[in-house]
Amino acid sequence: MADTRFFRRSGPFSLGSIAQHVGASLSRPTLADLSMHDLASLDTAGPSDVSLFSNGAYQGVAASSRAGALITSRKLGGLMPEESCLLYVTDPRLAFALVGSLFYPARTPDAGIHETAVVASGSTIGEGCQIDAGVRIGREVTIGLGCHIEANAVIGDGVSIGQACLIGANGTVRHALVGSRVRLGSNSCIGGEGFGFVPTPKGLLRQTQLGRVILEDDVEIGSNSSVDRGALGDTIIGRGTVIDNLVQVAHNVRIGRHCVIAAQAGIAGSTEIGDNVMIGGQSAIIDHVKIGPRARIAARSGVMRDVPEGETWGGVPAIPIRQWHRQTALLARLTERKAQED
Amino acid sequence: MADTRFFRRSGPFSLGSIAQHVGASLSRPTLADLSMHDLASLDTAGPSDVSLFSNGAYQGVAASSRAGALITSRKLGGLMPEESCLLYVTDPRLAFALVGSLFYPARTPDAGIHETAVVASGSTIGEGCQIDAGVRIGREVTIGLGCHIEANAVIGDGVSIGQACLIGANGTVRHALVGSRVRLGSNSCIGGEGFGFVPTPKGLLRQTQLGRVILEDDVEIGSNSSVDRGALGDTIIGRGTVIDNLVQVAHNVRIGRHCVIAAQAGIAGSTEIGDNVMIGGQSAIIDHVKIGPRARIAARSGVMRDVPEGETWGGVPAIPIRQWHRQTALLARLTERKAQED
Amino acid sequence: MADTRFFRRSGPFSLGSIAQHVGASLSRPTLADLSMHDLASLDTAGPSDVSLFSNGAYQGVAASSRAGALITSRKLGGLMPEESCLLYVTDPRLAFALVGSLFYPARTPDAGIHETAVVASGSTIGEGCQIDAGVRIGREVTIGLGCHIEANAVIGDGVSIGQACLIGANGTVRHALVGSRVRLGSNSCIGGEGFGFVPTPKGLLRQTQLGRVILEDDVEIGSNSSVDRGALGDTIIGRGTVIDNLVQVAHNVRIGRHCVIAAQAGIAGSTEIGDNVMIGGQSAIIDHVKIGPRARIAARSGVMRDVPEGETWGGVPAIPIRQWHRQTALLARLTERKAQED
Repeated sequence: MADTRFFRRSGPFSLGSIAQHVGASLSRPTLADLSMHDLASLDTAGPSDVSLFSNGAYQGVAASSRAGALITSRKLGGLMPEESCLLYVTDPRLAFALVGSLFYPARTPDAGIHETAVVASGSTIGEGCQIDAGVRIGREVTIGLGCHIEANAVIGDGVSIGQACLIGANGTVRHALVGSRVRLGSNSCIGGEGFGFVPTPKGLLRQTQLGRVILEDDVEIGSNSSVDRGALGDTIIGRGTVIDNLVQVAHNVRIGRHCVIAAQAGIAGSTEIGDNVMIGGQSAIIDHVKIGPRARIAARSGVMRDVPEGETWGGVPAIPIRQWHRQTALLARLTERKAQED
Repeated sequence: MADTRFFRRSGPFSLGSIAQHVGASLSRPTLADLSMHDLASLDTAGPSDVSLFSNGAYQGVAASSRAGALITSRKLGGLMPEESCLLYVTDPRLAFALVGSLFYPARTPDAGIHETAVVASGSTIGEGCQIDAGVRIGREVTIGLGCHIEANAVIGDGVSIGQACLIGANGTVRHALVGSRVRLGSNSCIGGEGFGFVPTPKGLLRQTQLGRVILEDDVEIGSNSSVDRGALGDTIIGRGTVIDNLVQVAHNVRIGRHCVIAAQAGIAGSTEIGDNVMIGGQSAIIDHVKIGPRARIAARSGVMRDVPEGETWGGVPAIPIRQWHRQTALLARLTERKAQED
Repeated sequence: MADTRFFRRSGPFSLGSIAQHVGASLSRPTLADLSMHDLASLDTAGPSDVSLFSNGAYQGVAASSRAGALITSRKLGGLMPEESCLLYVTDPRLAFALVGSLFYPARTPDAGIHETAVVASGSTIGEGCQIDAGVRIGREVTIGLGCHIEANAVIGDGVSIGQACLIGANGTVRHALVGSRVRLGSNSCIGGEGFGFVPTPKGLLRQTQLGRVILEDDVEIGSNSSVDRGALGDTIIGRGTVIDNLVQVAHNVRIGRHCVIAAQAGIAGSTEIGDNVMIGGQSAIIDHVKIGPRARIAARSGVMRDVPEGETWGGVPAIPIRQWHRQTALLARLTERKAQED
């Protein structure tokens, strides 16, 4: 179970109400009144915990799990002992995520502005907002209903933030228009100056960076990530896109909706990324290219040109993933043959 | 135009005065009195905006642009319709950057120390400095004229900062001597302990890190970057060098003047980098090597040995870039041939 | 010598007492009463400085060094002029590290809670702790004896921290149980939400992240690094493991004892790393793999599967390092041959 020092649990809930919450049918309907107190992993769950069996590779662990009930598919459920208490659903991982938020609902902000927070003139803080200690809010800032600005975060002049957002501790948000339900990790920096310089005989001259960052609704960004503002236009991250820790998004990048960008990836200036794109960890995408919708970029790739819609690319420079795998395999084979000849 | 919530615009300026400011000659001198109100990109500019045409690939966009005037070269200008209002210069990008700082001059700090800032004993804050809310300045710190220390930044004991510097919000500066006109992004960390340990039978023993960080004049560093102090000597970043976001500079690294280091690059301990070197994004340079002046390192390279002056290297391990391109091409060809044989 | 603005020196110490402190024998015992005032590198040391000669490549520099005494091995000492004042030890680097902490002992915290720090109700701060300006400590936090929490750090509700820890300026620690003598760099983020989402027809649904971060005794983490908390179980970093700057540790990762993880490395979710593993800079390790004890991963590698105990791997995808070197060499040779044929 989750550590109560950090998480507040709801419940207990009956198996029947859990089944209803996630749209499941019970393998043993007579157990509908059984009380479940928590969720847990297969190996640590006890008789009053709900657990998840979504991957056939864990059949053995699932069969010996002491969990009171398992969320699973009809197909995987067939691998379990007959007496198992199963919750059949079409998407077990989704159902388990819903059970997670049932037992551990999102915290409602404790409305109030801490006495050590500073809110400059002309700013509007919506009802129900929690503004923690040491927060600095600039001039003419607008913050919507029910936001939580964590301790020591800094919100620059003129920034606009929608409803129900979370700005992490020690985060910095400037030159940005932020939608609703946006979540920013701690120590992340939104709206910094883009990396734009012009060489001159006397050295590099900074180009004034006059754009903004637009974070649409439901965007999530991890900790220690940087999103620079545009040079003239805007840097835009589309609705529902999620970005991990330590990611770099350069000036004038445009990212579509519902993209997934893993940790330490970097996207160079003015690149355009379509909807539903997935980018693996530590990948780099060069400036001024276009990544088509639903494309996937393998971890540690270096994308140097446009990637067509729906394709999966990998390698440095990145190429279609099958080609890359063939190249890797051929080089291994040639090396082995050479070693045998020597 | 730039969002007035974030940027304060000067002007309007006559075409003639703009031409004079950037050293341009007008294609249509009779328009010298025309008022220009802003700058904009080719596709969004209107009749009172100055725009930039510096790349022949954008000829079509430039020809159909509604911009009141285009900054361009004589050569590119020849591609434009005869009636176009052009500002001829030898370096259009430089001229456009100068127009940017004409319309949007750098903000002068609002002199004053916010009541929530803490300045420890023995520290000196120069005239005209703006010290924002929540800033923590240690003992015996010296800050020159006209600096802006943004909210919640932390300046450690003994640090010295020159004139007209900008220290970003939530940034940390310690064990450092900082020149003038230095700009540090938000959430960056200057002067942390270098990563030096000695193995012992009982585990790793930290080597006391007794050096400093020297940032010479006009250095710029982005957000979420780390520059560690030296172990015995200093970590030095030369005059006018610019460093992007999420970059790692390890202890005792010495970087020359006017270098450009892109996002997420990493430079390991004691490596020396000459003047005017360019390092691409996500590149790594191993410890204790020398990169000659004017060398260029491609994005995502892994440099494992010295790079001679003026050369361009790429790949992992990095080699001269043409060799790397040939290797990449050969492997692709061999793989294709193999596929046809199978 | 170290800059006295930043470092407080002890001493002077006699050569004899230094020899005793590090278990050295003196090449010239008659000099045991000589006073040494500091330590320095070979090239900058003067007659009252101790320096280090631990690498034969520096024989020339060592021979011409003006250092008052050199810490070295008997073997390397044989390369020095006969009149040299040498401190013979079996591990010169270790001895020099010990001399470093003799002249520059770790600072004892200045006990006290700054008036601008905020400590929420139910929290316990141990004796001798130094809580700097702007620190925010949540509810029900426990901090042991003699810790130093630097300026503007944020400690979340329920966090527990052992004795003699250092939490760097602008750092964030949440959902974490921290051992003793743990040191966290500035602007690092411990305990953020893991990157776990389930795709749904309406977009990505965040999985509630209900685990913790466990940092065992003597863990050190650099600046701008991120360690996410577990999804259900915990993210664990074992005793004595040291982690550099800008490193990503994802949810449910388990790292053993005495590992060394260099800058900008990234470890994806649920991966297990044994004891005494070394991971080079900018390396990535995919999720759900196992790295055996004493394995070494070369810088810039991309590990896609399990690495056996004690092996050294490199490349992307990573393979045993000799194989990788052979592949690299073969490709270079083939390319050269092809160039000659053309």
